Amino acid sequence: MDKILVVKVGGNLINNNDVFNRFLKYFAKIQSKKILVHGGGNQVTKMCKKLNLEINIRNGRRITSVENLEVATMIYAGSLNKTLVTKLQSLNCNSIGLSGADANLIESVKRPVKEIDYGLVGDVKKINSIFLKNLLDDNIVPVICSITHDKNGQLLNTNADTITSEIAISLSKDYLVSLIYCHEKNGVLSNLDDDNSTIDKLNEKEFNNYVKLNIISNGMIPKLKNSFYALNNGVKSVKIAGNSLDDTNLKNTIISN
Amino acid sequence: MDKILVVKVGGNLINNNDVFNRFLKYFAKIQSKKILVHGGGNQVTKMCKKLNLEINIRNGRRITSVENLEVATMIYAGSLNKTLVTKLQSLNCNSIGLSGADANLIESVKRPVKEIDYGLVGDVKKINSIFLKNLLDDNIVPVICSITHDKNGQLLNTNADTITSEIAISLSKDYLVSLIYCHEKNGVLSNLDDDNSTIDKLNEKEFNNYVKLNIISNGMIPKLKNSFYALNNGVKSVKIAGNSLDDTNLKNTIISN
Repeated sequence: MDKILVVKVGGNLINNNDVFNRFLKYFAKIQSKKILVHGGGNQVTKMCKKLNLEINIRNGRRITSVENLEVATMIYAGSLNKTLVTKLQSLNCNSIGLSGADANLIESVKRPVKEIDYGLVGDVKKINSIFLKNLLDDNIVPVICSITHDKNGQLLNTNADTITSEIAISLSKDYLVSLIYCHEKNGVLSNLDDDNSTIDKLNEKEFNNYVKLNIISNGMIPKLKNSFYALNNGVKSVKIAGNSLDDTNLKNTIISN
Repeated sequence: MDKILVVKVGGNLINNNDVFNRFLKYFAKIQSKKILVHGGGNQVTKMCKKLNLEINIRNGRRITSVENLEVATMIYAGSLNKTLVTKLQSLNCNSIGLSGADANLIESVKRPVKEIDYGLVGDVKKINSIFLKNLLDDNIVPVICSITHDKNGQLLNTNADTITSEIAISLSKDYLVSLIYCHEKNGVLSNLDDDNSTIDKLNEKEFNNYVKLNIISNGMIPKLKNSFYALNNGVKSVKIAGNSLDDTNLKNTIISN
């Protein structure tokens, strides 16, 4: 089986132009088949503020109104996605920007209302991995944003970490999949105030202990849950990395089950 | 050779929700291979106003600042393109939204500064028709917006009518191409105040006469120049139509050379 690298890059990393350009240069040079998934929450928050739209975040998750979704679609699928694609093209990496609506790549279901009504938020239902495979066979690199759709004409805002793990899993029947979550810290830290406190290796049992001890908290919890979910469903290796893909330079956390 | 229909739809048509939904239903049902190209100038103007950005139009063409380009990319490639794609998906028309940066579909050159500096505006240089052909062979309908790129990392705002004719021409070596420009009027009118004054047929000589007599003016001039350019370069048929693709209902102008 061919190897494939699925890389998720977060909004805080994208915000730093110099670091991000270096990141893209490294990504463009990677020889194996590859996919980039991106968030971009900060830019959406900034644009919502400019347009005087209410921003509503509960339990670390964005509540998405009709107006918020429009902004998210403009930024994620529009300015941010196309900026990434043209930058990669200039680095001779033939890429294509995709939302979940495009070629029906990611079908999702509007999250049912329980204690919280998250609004126009989608939970992933199905990945069109055949289409991804066709692109990869043509040496085109998919650059995927976190907008999906319900196949009934409704776009839905969807968590980019979850999209990444679902895409990685969907490809694992055809490829040896490596998944890397890149963010602004050096992997998973045992002390958020100390960038050198990277945990080298982490299994599910250790993760649960760290959560109990409040050493791992907030947004890192769903990211790691997505990591274990991917490992338990066919993905060969998962890493939480920093703001570079260059192994020789930077620390990262290897996730094991 | 297979037949293909290339349809351009303009911003004024997109603005009218009911009419546009009817338009998309008809487009989705068309059995031949097909491509949709869209403008959306009004939505960009509205968003620029909301963000207090200057809007600068000279000779009917938008002068594009860095900020204007960001808004154009957000709207054309983002909210508008993805709304079109998800609507078509809900009508069982498997479509994919594309800017010119995606898969290097449309490479353009920043327009040289002469009397007017149009800013970040691109003139089409090269169409990746092989990629389009691959999508069409997989029964995927390209939905193309009017953002292109220079292959050096710069996105560029590009006239949607021009993109449409260039795409039609690029496909004419592999397909029998029919091109339809849809807009809010019933084809080319001999009297702009009378929606029933459709000119049934128009050749280049007649067009030049109408322009001299000021019967054809403004934005219709470049649209018709694009039409004759397409006809003279391999496209089999060109029509200027109204807000429907249903021939039995509505009047349109057949362009001939």
